[in-house]
Amino acid sequence: MGHQVSPLAPERFPELPPIDGVRLATGETGIRYKNRPDVLLAVMDPGTAVAGCFTKSKSRSAPVDWCVESLAAGLARAVVINAGNANAFTGKAGVATVKAVASAAARLLKCKPHNIYQASTGVIGEPLNPSPITAALPQLMEAARPDAWSEAARAIMTTDTFAKACTVTAKLDGRTVTINGIAKGSGMIAPDMATMLVFIFTDAAIPPRVLQKLLSRSVGSSFNCITVDGDTSTSDTVLMFATGAAGKPVKALASAADVRLKGFAKALDSLCLDLALQVARDGEGAEKLIEIAVTGAENDRAAHRIAMSIANSPLVKTAIAGEDANWGRVVMAIGKAGEKAIRDKLRITIGGVTVARNGMRDPAYKEAEIMPHMKGRHVVITADVGVGKGKARVWTCDLTHRYIDINGSYRS
Amino acid sequence: MGHQVSPLAPERFPELPPIDGVRLATGETGIRYKNRPDVLLAVMDPGTAVAGCFTKSKSRSAPVDWCVESLAAGLARAVVINAGNANAFTGKAGVATVKAVASAAARLLKCKPHNIYQASTGVIGEPLNPSPITAALPQLMEAARPDAWSEAARAIMTTDTFAKACTVTAKLDGRTVTINGIAKGSGMIAPDMATMLVFIFTDAAIPPRVLQKLLSRSVGSSFNCITVDGDTSTSDTVLMFATGAAGKPVKALASAADVRLKGFAKALDSLCLDLALQVARDGEGAEKLIEIAVTGAENDRAAHRIAMSIANSPLVKTAIAGEDANWGRVVMAIGKAGEKAIRDKLRITIGGVTVARNGMRDPAYKEAEIMPHMKGRHVVITADVGVGKGKARVWTCDLTHRYIDINGSYRS
Repeated sequence: MGHQVSPLAPERFPELPPIDGVRLATGETGIRYKNRPDVLLAVMDPGTAVAGCFTKSKSRSAPVDWCVESLAAGLARAVVINAGNANAFTGKAGVATVKAVASAAARLLKCKPHNIYQASTGVIGEPLNPSPITAALPQLMEAARPDAWSEAARAIMTTDTFAKACTVTAKLDGRTVTINGIAKGSGMIAPDMATMLVFIFTDAAIPPRVLQKLLSRSVGSSFNCITVDGDTSTSDTVLMFATGAAGKPVKALASAADVRLKGFAKALDSLCLDLALQVARDGEGAEKLIEIAVTGAENDRAAHRIAMSIANSPLVKTAIAGEDANWGRVVMAIGKAGEKAIRDKLRITIGGVTVARNGMRDPAYKEAEIMPHMKGRHVVITADVGVGKGKARVWTCDLTHRYIDINGSYRS
Repeated sequence: MGHQVSPLAPERFPELPPIDGVRLATGETGIRYKNRPDVLLAVMDPGTAVAGCFTKSKSRSAPVDWCVESLAAGLARAVVINAGNANAFTGKAGVATVKAVASAAARLLKCKPHNIYQASTGVIGEPLNPSPITAALPQLMEAARPDAWSEAARAIMTTDTFAKACTVTAKLDGRTVTINGIAKGSGMIAPDMATMLVFIFTDAAIPPRVLQKLLSRSVGSSFNCITVDGDTSTSDTVLMFATGAAGKPVKALASAADVRLKGFAKALDSLCLDLALQVARDGEGAEKLIEIAVTGAENDRAAHRIAMSIANSPLVKTAIAGEDANWGRVVMAIGKAGEKAIRDKLRITIGGVTVARNGMRDPAYKEAEIMPHMKGRHVVITADVGVGKGKARVWTCDLTHRYIDINGSYRS
C-alpha cells in the first residue's frame, strides 16, 4: 500500500455483473492495517462446487492446509480472506485460528466447518488472532450483497498498487454462464506482503471433480506461467466456486473432456490469463511487462523450464529495465536452464527482429532496429532451441530500483 | 571497471611467491579495453599436469569446449586468457579463433595445440578476432617471468573491483609445495562481463587424473557454493596446473585417496574457498557477505539445494540489504526449494540468535537483539530443516541498488 500505481496497470477496474448464488461483504478488522477493509467474506448458495490450486511450497500456511483438506468434500458455502497476516509458520496456534474461523462461519451458515474456505496474506510468523475476524462475521453475513466486486478486490490487496478483476461469459449447454474473478499479487510473491490469491466465481453447474480438472488446466497456462522474482509464497491460492444457479445441464457433465465444456474452458483460460497478467503487471517495481516464448524444446515441460530460467534471470531483467537488448544474457539463461538446447541452432528474436540464429549473432541484425521496442512497455522475446516441438510462453516484469526499495525496507 | 572498490574487499593484494616451472606475462591487445592489460599468458614447463572444472551451461563458450577436449591428454604447456570478449555464441568463427590461438602458441612452444589452454571473458556474441592475441604471443613468451602474479590477476578482470589471489603451502611426501591461485568474477556471473575464471598453479608433482579428483572435490565445496544472482556463465572455468618442479614423490601418487595427499588436499580446499569468497565479496553491488548453513536435510545434495534457494532469493537478499532480519523470507525460500523440510521442526538462527523453532517464531526472540549483526558486513543464517543429517554451507551477497546500476546500464 502507499506505492504509486504501476505504469502497467489497466486503465480502469472492470464492471463485474452479479453471479447468481454469490454475495460479498468486506470489513475492517484492524489486524494490521488501519482504516481500510482487510477482510472479505463471500457466501455461496448451498450446493456450490469448489476446486482449488495451491502453492507447491513445503512450508505452506495453515489456511492452505485447511483448504486442501476441505476439497475432498467438493462443496463450499463461504470463503473468508484476510489481508495483513498470512497465518503462515504459526505452528499449532495457526491451525487453531483456521478452525476457529471455520467453526464461527459454519455456525452462522448452518453448514460443516470444512465448507468454509480460507486464505490469508500478509506477514508470516506472526500469530493471527481469530477474534477480530470471528467477531466481524455476523455483520458481514448480514451485509453481503451481489454487487460488491470492487470492494472485494480492494479488501484483499497488500502491496498491490491496483485492484485486479476480470469477467467473461460462455455458452454452456445452451445457457449463457458468467465467470468473475478477483486477484491479488504484486511480485511473484513473497510471504511478506505479496502472496498471490485468486478467487473465481461462476453460476455454471459443474461437478467438483470436473471443475478441478478445468481449473488445474487453466492455472497451468496462466498463473503457473508468471513470475516476478522466482520466489514462491507459503500461501498462493486459487479457488473456484461454481454455484450452479444458471441451471443444471440436461445431461450431467461427467468429464472435463465433455465437448459441451469447450467454450467454458476457453473462457476460463482467458479469465485466468487476464488475471495472471494483471499480477505480472503489478510486479513490484515493474516498468515493463516481458513476454517470453520458447519453441523447439524437447517437450513442453522443458520449454517451460527454459522460459522460466530466462524470466527469472536477474541479469535479463535488469538489462530490460535498462532498455538494453542484451540477448547474450538470454543465451546465458537458456544455457543454465539444464534442459537440452542445441547451441548452434539457437534462434532468438526481440520485438519480432531476429538477433541471433545458428548459434551466433544474425549478421543482418542492427541494435538500432529494436531500440523503439526496448523503450516500450511490453517487451517480447522468443527463443527457439532447435531440439524438438516443445513450447511454452511465460510473462514477467523487469527488475528495477523500486523492487529493491519495496523489498529492502524495514517491515515496520 | 570504473566501479568503486567493494567494501568487502580484502585490505591488500597478497604476496604470491614464484611457482617453479611457471612464468607469467600480460599485454594489451586493445580488443575491447583501451590502456589496460587484457591478455594473460602463463607458460609451464614440459610435463605439467592439468585438471579443470567448467560451467554446466548448455551453451558454453568455444574456449570451454576446447579445454574440455584438451583435458583428455592431461598435459599443459600454456594457458592464454583474454578479457573483454568471451568468444561465446560465436559459432564456427569462435572455434576457428580458439584453434588459431592454440596453433600460434604451440608453434612457439613446440608442443601440441591441445597443450595450450584458453579462457575468455567479456561480451558474448561478438566475434573474437584472434590476430591481436596471436600477434602479442611472441613478445609475451619473451617477457614471461615468475613474479608477475599481481599483473596477472589484474589482466583478467572485467567488472571486478579488486584483483583476487591467494597462496598456500602444504607438505607433500616430505617436501614443501606451494599452490598459487588467481581468480576473476564479480557476480555469480553473467556472460556479459562477469564470468568466473580461476587459475591455480602448483609445483607439486601430481598425475593428471589424481589432480582432477582433488580439484573437483575442492571446487565442490568452494566455487560451487557461491552465488551472486543465480546466473551461470557460458564460460566459467577453473584450471589447475601442477608443474612437478618440487620433485616427484619416491612412490607415485596413484589415487586422490593416498594418505600423503591429505595436507595438500586441505591446502587446496582452503585456497579454493578463499578465492571463492573473494568472488562473493566482489558480487556486483555487494555491501554484505551472507553465509548460509543448512543442516538436518535429507542428504548433502538436498541441503545444498535448500541453501542455494535461500542464497538466490531476491527477497532474502533485498531484506538483508535493508538490514531487515526478515526470517519469514528464509522460511519461504526453504519451502520453495522442492526438498523435504518438516515445517513444524524448522529452526532458524541469524547471527547465532534463534529466531524460529518448532515451526514458529521463538517466543524468546527479540528483533533488537540481532540488529547489530544485521548492520555488520557479514550476515550468518542457519536453518535446520528437521529431516535428516544432510548439511551444506554456501555464500552470497546482498542485492542492492548498485547491482541494478551495474547490470541495467547499456553495454556501450
